[in-house]
Amino acid sequence: MTGDERVESDAFGPVEIPAGRYWGAQTQRALGVFEIGQERFPAALVRCFGLQKLAAARANRKLGQLEPDVAEVIEIAARELWEGRFDDEFPLPVWQTGSGTQTNMNANEVIANRANELLGHPLGTRAPVHPNDHVNRSQSSNDSFPTVMHLTAVSELRNRLTPALAGLRTTLEAKAEQFADVVKIGRTHLMDAVPMTVGHSFTAFARQIGNAIERIEATMPRLRALPQGGTAVGTGLNAPNGFDAAFCAEATALTGVAFHAAESKFEGMGAHDALVEGHAAVKVAAVSLLKIANDVRLLGSGPRCGLGELVIPSDGLTSSIMPGKVNPTIAEVLAQAALQVIGNDTTVSMAGGAGTFELNVAKPVLIHNVLQSIRILADSVTVFDARLVRDLEVDRDRLAVNVDGALLLATALNPVLGYDQVARITARARRDGITPREATVELGLLTAQEYDRHVDPAAMARPHRHPTPGA
Amino acid sequence: MTGDERVESDAFGPVEIPAGRYWGAQTQRALGVFEIGQERFPAALVRCFGLQKLAAARANRKLGQLEPDVAEVIEIAARELWEGRFDDEFPLPVWQTGSGTQTNMNANEVIANRANELLGHPLGTRAPVHPNDHVNRSQSSNDSFPTVMHLTAVSELRNRLTPALAGLRTTLEAKAEQFADVVKIGRTHLMDAVPMTVGHSFTAFARQIGNAIERIEATMPRLRALPQGGTAVGTGLNAPNGFDAAFCAEATALTGVAFHAAESKFEGMGAHDALVEGHAAVKVAAVSLLKIANDVRLLGSGPRCGLGELVIPSDGLTSSIMPGKVNPTIAEVLAQAALQVIGNDTTVSMAGGAGTFELNVAKPVLIHNVLQSIRILADSVTVFDARLVRDLEVDRDRLAVNVDGALLLATALNPVLGYDQVARITARARRDGITPREATVELGLLTAQEYDRHVDPAAMARPHRHPTPGA
Amino acid sequence: MTGDERVESDAFGPVEIPAGRYWGAQTQRALGVFEIGQERFPAALVRCFGLQKLAAARANRKLGQLEPDVAEVIEIAARELWEGRFDDEFPLPVWQTGSGTQTNMNANEVIANRANELLGHPLGTRAPVHPNDHVNRSQSSNDSFPTVMHLTAVSELRNRLTPALAGLRTTLEAKAEQFADVVKIGRTHLMDAVPMTVGHSFTAFARQIGNAIERIEATMPRLRALPQGGTAVGTGLNAPNGFDAAFCAEATALTGVAFHAAESKFEGMGAHDALVEGHAAVKVAAVSLLKIANDVRLLGSGPRCGLGELVIPSDGLTSSIMPGKVNPTIAEVLAQAALQVIGNDTTVSMAGGAGTFELNVAKPVLIHNVLQSIRILADSVTVFDARLVRDLEVDRDRLAVNVDGALLLATALNPVLGYDQVARITARARRDGITPREATVELGLLTAQEYDRHVDPAAMARPHRHPTPGA
Amino acid sequence: MTGDERVESDAFGPVEIPAGRYWGAQTQRALGVFEIGQERFPAALVRCFGLQKLAAARANRKLGQLEPDVAEVIEIAARELWEGRFDDEFPLPVWQTGSGTQTNMNANEVIANRANELLGHPLGTRAPVHPNDHVNRSQSSNDSFPTVMHLTAVSELRNRLTPALAGLRTTLEAKAEQFADVVKIGRTHLMDAVPMTVGHSFTAFARQIGNAIERIEATMPRLRALPQGGTAVGTGLNAPNGFDAAFCAEATALTGVAFHAAESKFEGMGAHDALVEGHAAVKVAAVSLLKIANDVRLLGSGPRCGLGELVIPSDGLTSSIMPGKVNPTIAEVLAQAALQVIGNDTTVSMAGGAGTFELNVAKPVLIHNVLQSIRILADSVTVFDARLVRDLEVDRDRLAVNVDGALLLATALNPVLGYDQVARITARARRDGITPREATVELGLLTAQEYDRHVDPAAMARPHRHPTPGA
Repeated sequence: MTGDERVESDAFGPVEIPAGRYWGAQTQRALGVFEIGQERFPAALVRCFGLQKLAAARANRKLGQLEPDVAEVIEIAARELWEGRFDDEFPLPVWQTGSGTQTNMNANEVIANRANELLGHPLGTRAPVHPNDHVNRSQSSNDSFPTVMHLTAVSELRNRLTPALAGLRTTLEAKAEQFADVVKIGRTHLMDAVPMTVGHSFTAFARQIGNAIERIEATMPRLRALPQGGTAVGTGLNAPNGFDAAFCAEATALTGVAFHAAESKFEGMGAHDALVEGHAAVKVAAVSLLKIANDVRLLGSGPRCGLGELVIPSDGLTSSIMPGKVNPTIAEVLAQAALQVIGNDTTVSMAGGAGTFELNVAKPVLIHNVLQSIRILADSVTVFDARLVRDLEVDRDRLAVNVDGALLLATALNPVLGYDQVARITARARRDGITPREATVELGLLTAQEYDRHVDPAAMARPHRHPTPGA
Repeated sequence: MTGDERVESDAFGPVEIPAGRYWGAQTQRALGVFEIGQERFPAALVRCFGLQKLAAARANRKLGQLEPDVAEVIEIAARELWEGRFDDEFPLPVWQTGSGTQTNMNANEVIANRANELLGHPLGTRAPVHPNDHVNRSQSSNDSFPTVMHLTAVSELRNRLTPALAGLRTTLEAKAEQFADVVKIGRTHLMDAVPMTVGHSFTAFARQIGNAIERIEATMPRLRALPQGGTAVGTGLNAPNGFDAAFCAEATALTGVAFHAAESKFEGMGAHDALVEGHAAVKVAAVSLLKIANDVRLLGSGPRCGLGELVIPSDGLTSSIMPGKVNPTIAEVLAQAALQVIGNDTTVSMAGGAGTFELNVAKPVLIHNVLQSIRILADSVTVFDARLVRDLEVDRDRLAVNVDGALLLATALNPVLGYDQVARITARARRDGITPREATVELGLLTAQEYDRHVDPAAMARPHRHPTPGA
Repeated sequence: MTGDERVESDAFGPVEIPAGRYWGAQTQRALGVFEIGQERFPAALVRCFGLQKLAAARANRKLGQLEPDVAEVIEIAARELWEGRFDDEFPLPVWQTGSGTQTNMNANEVIANRANELLGHPLGTRAPVHPNDHVNRSQSSNDSFPTVMHLTAVSELRNRLTPALAGLRTTLEAKAEQFADVVKIGRTHLMDAVPMTVGHSFTAFARQIGNAIERIEATMPRLRALPQGGTAVGTGLNAPNGFDAAFCAEATALTGVAFHAAESKFEGMGAHDALVEGHAAVKVAAVSLLKIANDVRLLGSGPRCGLGELVIPSDGLTSSIMPGKVNPTIAEVLAQAALQVIGNDTTVSMAGGAGTFELNVAKPVLIHNVLQSIRILADSVTVFDARLVRDLEVDRDRLAVNVDGALLLATALNPVLGYDQVARITARARRDGITPREATVELGLLTAQEYDRHVDPAAMARPHRHPTPGA
Repeated sequence: MTGDERVESDAFGPVEIPAGRYWGAQTQRALGVFEIGQERFPAALVRCFGLQKLAAARANRKLGQLEPDVAEVIEIAARELWEGRFDDEFPLPVWQTGSGTQTNMNANEVIANRANELLGHPLGTRAPVHPNDHVNRSQSSNDSFPTVMHLTAVSELRNRLTPALAGLRTTLEAKAEQFADVVKIGRTHLMDAVPMTVGHSFTAFARQIGNAIERIEATMPRLRALPQGGTAVGTGLNAPNGFDAAFCAEATALTGVAFHAAESKFEGMGAHDALVEGHAAVKVAAVSLLKIANDVRLLGSGPRCGLGELVIPSDGLTSSIMPGKVNPTIAEVLAQAALQVIGNDTTVSMAGGAGTFELNVAKPVLIHNVLQSIRILADSVTVFDARLVRDLEVDRDRLAVNVDGALLLATALNPVLGYDQVARITARARRDGITPREATVELGLLTAQEYDRHVDPAAMARPHRHPTPGA
């Protein structure tokens, strides 16, 4: 032991802890045990432990479980934690006990030490404020950690992912407006089909993102249900009557989000279906974004030997061997983030199903994946929005050339000639490398004038702006 | 060519078809191409093609797109298809074009042939009712197939899975009631914790299933949005104004489900986020059921060397080598179905992200997985409910023995002695193989009478039926 | 009970069975229990049960466990099963007990009934040949079913998937040869890069498929290890010494594949890592095929508004609304099969991890997925090979136009001018819509003649056919 | 711009960089673009870039591509990078261009700056050593990054994961030896079956881990094939003839691992099947470990109300509410790591399939997941080995009680009485709560003495140490 350490004792005996650290004996023991990986919980979760301990202390005080002076100093310390003051005092890896007990104890210890410090005691005294008896009062890791999982997930979904998606949707809608009249060839099975507008594509993207936001919101009723108050196994042993409701009232007051007590604490501790559901909504967003990223990349491919219909803004990055090559880097990032999220969904599902009896014991890996997915998707979306979509342009020449040559413009003749005759036109045009107009005339089915009256790409692109043929 | 075949011609030339079959040239060609696997679409999907063609014909008639007499005979044939008459006329595998075109053409051909037959013509005439020009009128595979995907998924979720889940929930609630007063030891990390009741466990299960139903319902707003009316690429080319709304009105009238036109047909044809979302809800249900199946299996393990708290009814099946061995077969089936669903979710997500431009071309594999998941989960739940949960019993002797020996009954002393003293009690009891009561007395912390006043398993199991200690 | 049923009794009492059926009481009871889904084991697995019972009977006879006359008639019946005579006598769904006990009993019962029938007794006598005491002699479901899983997987991998892959590789190699001198523009990030040949692309595909075959072969050492002989829990209780080796010797003699006894029967019954590994190899093949299918689809996109470098042969199928539209249907099928396999891999992994103690109880779902993956991938590959790759052609005009316009031909100047100067060339060419040759001259960096000496697309496409600049 | 920054110019213009940093303009630009997530590549990958640049410089020198003095200083700088000196000079997130170009440029810039520094020039001069023209000589990101992916994966598999697994196998084998004679009841379907030894369980575990090592090794032939030398698209443009072989010779000399040039560079750049395969092997190890972790947890459950056959050593951690509760924390960590790896496998598979044409553009996410899986699994295994398995003990009393009461000891009577009679014994014993011995006698099937002669748990546990009954 060097002079840089202090000794703290818990029920298992003394432990050496770096002198200035706020964490305590259980955290320090855990550090020695869990020498695994490099993943740490994000600050978002650490801070929500401050929120949780603050709400718990206020509920305890209200229900007479803590003396006002003890409650007050716990509340001060917990609020500091919530506000980010102790982000660096949570050294444990994600890879810990399946209940998250060590991180809950870490929070208890940091707050107890800080509270005692505020009362003029050195770190490590465990008195007058005790990490278990006071900070963890009326609580267990088994209800506190999943409560923090919910608090953090709700916060990150609402404050990080949803705003990023909303921003992208707005930009996509603006692009839809901007390109509303630009006619392009539609493609199905990657093959040339019939005309539409560039605006239509962006309308579809915007609708996907709008739905993504709705989906996330649709999971909130279950994510806002908190298992706090269940304590050790769900019965609420050692918590006073009404602690669950009192806690939720405080959490609601502190956050402005309408949290409520889970109907069955057992369900909220032994299973994490609500978080599996929440991640699934994030996963669907990833699926949507994967499609959008791929479409944008493909439509922007070229510049001379690809589809080249979209012009993707340069980000100032280039190839290490091909000087001046401009790549759709940001679309690739978004696609990669989406692949991570879809894989994380498998982990989250398995973790959700890994509970046994009164406790799901895959909580850390579950919430780690949930929070990673939210973070990387939100950040990728923000960059994609700001640096790629916002400045997307179209190559009008290329678009026009494509529309003019398309074989299946002849589809507009179906109501006039019937499907089987139109099939003859396209077969002939393909065989001879001519336009469908030429083929139609050559086959003697229509005159060129008649053809032009029926086949107007701009009208075909937006048929319902015009009188419907058979209506 | 034997005498058992007829010849039918389409735009690509003549094809031989088994004489009595209602399908036509495109189906027959596809049969020759897609000699892959053994998976076929379930009858549920085939029949919903009848519903879709019926609604389309009615909308076409209303909008003046079909002559009444043609419409009428199409409607008769389509209704027959809907009612199951042509289940065997859909020979194509799931493994076909990514748009499902071949199965849409199969439906068009069956209905056209049947309609012509009703009008006194032999199979294969393609007149007066033409599969493309009349049955597929105002439609494309590209909007019809995804519309049928939605119709089928909604139907199967509402008529198959949700009722199965509701039945299980009712049974679980009855069990929760039945065992409401049976005290048991709770377990966290698989380790003995503090008392609760058997009823609590079933309340948690029931809550999981109740939430599963809510989750499925929460996806309906997006599943009830249909892309019909988008035709080839989403613009609605060759469909009359208002066809989308007219179709949805007919579908709603025919099913009683409030279908509505998708805001962006492009979104509903190029992406299938709503189905990815719908399957995710099924997946969350699978996650819940996996947990329940595992808990039931473990609590019923034994009969003599396991936990043995639950008594699983025999199903009359046994081991091939250990005579009379009774296994939790049905729980194993449910668990396996859940594993299938979770894996299917990966496929569905990837399929959902596999769209490009105006068309998702992984439609068949996507809906195949969605429908398989619904079916096997619903069936497994039904059997689990009827043959396992309904007749579950408890072993009261075993439960009582377990509660009496549990070390952590001493947790009830936390508010009296503080966490650190109670840790001494449990350590002593564990070391010496004695009860926590004996350890408490031995350590001189409480008298036996005082211990008994504070440590009452039945009271601990339902603490909030009793005055809270510290309140 | 109608006249169409017979009554058979087992240890649990009498059961009614359809009169002509070879299965017995346990199968019939199981039919009543497992009314779940529509998935059945493929004939490949059912037949391998014949192989397994045949090898077991021969080993039993050799080790004195069965009287020769009993063994003989079992062997006859088992061989009939192996040869496909009783494919229809296995009515049970995949969704059954996690040990596959019911299907093992099904095999025992079919063989016993058939053996007794051969001896002149009616179905259902259970004597002189008893399904458990004789057909299942020295066996349990717990070792027999996983043995059959291995036998079937090895057979399907070697006889179905590997030949399909080998066929595709041969075709790809032929295409690589055919297009060895066709220069094309290479693309990275979907963007135009530097020249290569069409043959190069097919060489890469061929290499992927060659590796896929190697990968599958690399799993064989562990797939050829059989747990037969472990009986109930792995100890070999009730099997004679040496039964494992004797069985494997018979299986090897019957199949020509070098099967050997698993070192730890416990490992082969409680876990199925070898099958998880085997499926993973199939999954990697799916990943490769997904890439190939997508490249082919994209390179064949058009015909007029896409990349259009490959010409995909028509399969005679078309759109339901766009007459004559030709789509890359078979590439889409292959891609969809790949997505299914990747999702199945998740199920297989979870099923593999779902074992507890002496028995993995997710055997049916595990092998169902393994066999489905093999089947659909093999079939898709065969169709892809025969109907798409074999007749692929290139559009030489399109290829040449693309090469000529490519900006990054200038990359060949890096060794001459340095990276930063070349970046000026490409920036200028892009800005002004001119060729890099024009830009180079315009910037005064090289004369046109010098440019042409350094920038020769054909030489760039195969630089190592030519002297290396700096060598 | 503050005084803490320097200005560096590349082909795109000037950029401000923190003064003391070794990275250059492309890295700094990328930092501004990719503000996404918190994931960074591990030091293992950063260092392997040093190895790659060192081997490349040596190959370039040998082939006359670099002047000896330039090569020498690059080699010094690259070796420093390899040895860990510049771990902190790689600030970019994983979430970057799909080719990993930015991290390759980061390496080029760090080495160029360091080389110039060694030659007495300030940072940012880009001369005399240029990041592209010299450090990246004969290379592209497109071949360098995947080469580093292979180098790192091979290194981490061989130096991190395999040793961890080998250590665990050794410990498991020691446990198998230690408990070789301890009889226990085997369990199938979680239900009591027939006797075996505790040693058997550990033999099975050891075999799983031994196979895991073999599996990883089986992927090496393809992981040791490097795409270096393909440069931009796979042709090797701007690399000298023989660069690939020369590079591999250097890499082999530097590492002692037999790397060789990939047969098709196109395959190694456009696809990453070898890494998908490598991760799959890690995934199978995770599946094995999940089973082992779960078995250990369940067998150690209790201490009084669980199975209680294994005694898991305490790690000094406990519950926050239940004082002195000891949980199988480390087994839970291992299980969670396994769930992460299985989910990562989905991401890796999708990333592997996400390549198009000449480049896979999901390289960063792919290798990030591969390296994370290796790291967390290796670390978890090491802790599981050292802190849990090594000190595992058994509860001999509990084991003996379980064996004595087991119903299916009667299975040993099958060869004597036949399956159906034994079924009567177990049914009677179960019904009346008596031992199978008592039931046998009561049913008049055997005398107690006869029963004891046939039913000897110790002999049943290791039947093949004894004469086989029927042999």
